[in-house]
Amino acid sequence: MTAISRLDREIDELAAISAHPAPAVTRVLFSAEDIAARQWLMAKAKEAGFFVRSDPAGNLLIRWEGDEPCLPAVATGSHTDAIPNAGKYDGVVGVLGGLEAMRQLKEAGHEPKRSIELIMFTSEEPTRFGIGCLGSRLMAGTTSPDDARTLRDPDGRSLDELREAAGCRGDLGAVKVSSLSYSAFVELHIEQGPLLEAAQLDIGIVEKIAAPSAFRLLLKGSGGHAGAVLMKDRRDAFLAAAEIALLVERAALESGSPDTVGTCGLVEVKPGAINSIPCDVKMEVDFRDTNREARDKALGKIGDGTREICGRRGIEIDWQVINQDPPAICEPTLVALAESKAKAAGFSCQRMISRAYHDSLFMARICPTTMIFIPCYKGYSHRPDEYSSPEAIAKGVAVLKECLKELSVK
Amino acid sequence: MTAISRLDREIDELAAISAHPAPAVTRVLFSAEDIAARQWLMAKAKEAGFFVRSDPAGNLLIRWEGDEPCLPAVATGSHTDAIPNAGKYDGVVGVLGGLEAMRQLKEAGHEPKRSIELIMFTSEEPTRFGIGCLGSRLMAGTTSPDDARTLRDPDGRSLDELREAAGCRGDLGAVKVSSLSYSAFVELHIEQGPLLEAAQLDIGIVEKIAAPSAFRLLLKGSGGHAGAVLMKDRRDAFLAAAEIALLVERAALESGSPDTVGTCGLVEVKPGAINSIPCDVKMEVDFRDTNREARDKALGKIGDGTREICGRRGIEIDWQVINQDPPAICEPTLVALAESKAKAAGFSCQRMISRAYHDSLFMARICPTTMIFIPCYKGYSHRPDEYSSPEAIAKGVAVLKECLKELSVK
Repeated sequence: MTAISRLDREIDELAAISAHPAPAVTRVLFSAEDIAARQWLMAKAKEAGFFVRSDPAGNLLIRWEGDEPCLPAVATGSHTDAIPNAGKYDGVVGVLGGLEAMRQLKEAGHEPKRSIELIMFTSEEPTRFGIGCLGSRLMAGTTSPDDARTLRDPDGRSLDELREAAGCRGDLGAVKVSSLSYSAFVELHIEQGPLLEAAQLDIGIVEKIAAPSAFRLLLKGSGGHAGAVLMKDRRDAFLAAAEIALLVERAALESGSPDTVGTCGLVEVKPGAINSIPCDVKMEVDFRDTNREARDKALGKIGDGTREICGRRGIEIDWQVINQDPPAICEPTLVALAESKAKAAGFSCQRMISRAYHDSLFMARICPTTMIFIPCYKGYSHRPDEYSSPEAIAKGVAVLKECLKELSVK
Repeated sequence: MTAISRLDREIDELAAISAHPAPAVTRVLFSAEDIAARQWLMAKAKEAGFFVRSDPAGNLLIRWEGDEPCLPAVATGSHTDAIPNAGKYDGVVGVLGGLEAMRQLKEAGHEPKRSIELIMFTSEEPTRFGIGCLGSRLMAGTTSPDDARTLRDPDGRSLDELREAAGCRGDLGAVKVSSLSYSAFVELHIEQGPLLEAAQLDIGIVEKIAAPSAFRLLLKGSGGHAGAVLMKDRRDAFLAAAEIALLVERAALESGSPDTVGTCGLVEVKPGAINSIPCDVKMEVDFRDTNREARDKALGKIGDGTREICGRRGIEIDWQVINQDPPAICEPTLVALAESKAKAAGFSCQRMISRAYHDSLFMARICPTTMIFIPCYKGYSHRPDEYSSPEAIAKGVAVLKECLKELSVK
């Protein structure tokens, strides 16, 4: 039985900053809770003696200056924002675990040659603006400042308005980093899948990250009284959405690739009264795979099927692509390094793919990248009963620490 | 071209009392707008010299005392509440048209033997408590005060709390009326269907009202990260809801009765994030027919199919019956009277059924009842572009007036 560590206490402290009561965690980008969590994290980082700054997008950069500060830095990090009614480990293990790894190295007298930088990425979750990994996209330059400026949340508020209200000032053009900024990026994360737990393994080293794709469908039919309009005269937008959701499921199941997943996670039906025929539906669909070809073929089928369904039902479609990114291949030498560190510590481990996507997907565009996975209970994530044990987290932090140690003196 | 009448002006005045801007009308039970509309109506009725009272459920009873006030009264009426983003005619034409008919009779020197009573029924729309015709159900005694006391709105507020805050005091047990209270009930209403307009008819006389049935499904699956949980491991509550919605449509289309309609009008999906698998769905279903047997057979199919879908997908179901009422048969002598009045005025008319249900369905339990329908644009209702012309409304009011005139001296 391990005593409760400083890191475990901090994970609980951060979880308490939430818009929904425990065990749920809700911290939507630039909400009061997200802003409070940022301030809490900055205070922790300063207390540990690190230099803290926020870029104009709200990415927090927590830096331990090395002896040769002009060299590309070694980076780690993840996110602290959380979708409604999520858990306390997704993202947080990478941010607070990264802070803990840096503190342990400092306490042990490590003297980095390269600077070590912990990044808390802004808006990894797409909750507010419908696009995930906004902070890392802007850092990598895969989303332009002009595109970011057009983003609006469901209340019509812009990124510029919200980030400025949260104290993140300056031009979004300054967020993009040079390809010489970082020599490596290693992200610690819970697996968000069941494989490590089922195989009773301590550590997973990520070789590939699945290619995400997301789109929004605005379906427009015709409303009317549920009692009075005969079935054959209807143009019910929800029935079209129902058919499309089942089509998305079928396209994922029949893609030929075992890793394809498709989800209609956001569905809003209007006017939303029991006795009124749905005239408007907004549905957001997430579709991904490690195999880009299989994914894009399935997406083509969904597009064709959606047009057929809506044509037959007399529904107008507005199909908006939210993102459609290529998969990331992790840097083999970095994968090998993390694996050797896990093995040297006596931990069981395997190489694997990440089906969830992460800021690492975008960091991989600008520097060698890998991820360290730890097991989580039944693979649950994005729900209040998400759980990784203190022991599992400590092992992940230990591997991350050894990676940062070696990478920062090379 | 008719000049704008007092009634047309009043319809516009009432439409302006709305939670959404014109042309939409939203007046949910006991909202600020519903309360303001009640006060506005009471002022209009008092101005016309009628006696006004509210029962404990908030039914407004606007009475013109006859020479023999102990005789059962002749009643008319409808509702003024409106679902979100509805139009300005549903219910309102019956309430303000009834008021106008009574005023015209009074101005013409009519001396009723029986009292004439205009009823503005509370909560014809199910928006707040999920059950329609609450006021007339309580008057007819088909919903007990004890059942009504258990109702909660989506924010957990009770009927008792809300009605008392709106100034409707007293015991709900006092709402039920005796079978000797009314000698007849005649409701004027827009058709909410396309038949009269298509046939270019002025007036429809209702012989039967469709049997409504409504139920709520609470579907519980398993959430998780949309990227990480493989398709075969999912228990997605929304995919079950999608299949059920298509099953409801099929059951309505294949019932064997041309009048069967089924609608999934309210669908709420949680947690409601693009990258999160839906774990909870609330769906409310409205299913109705004039043929009770066909309806109940189709409902049986929906029940069986829902169990099969949820069993296969690993989804828990909580199936809550909201209501399941028998259809109403209108009183033949009353139907004949209304028809003769329409014909005497030179209006074209036909007998028809009401597919939408109305407070008349419940008034029919306690007194002879019929309805007078007028055409509306394309049959649209429950949407902002709901429309009946001033001429069509004036004809409906004329027929209602003649009915009230004759019935009140018999």
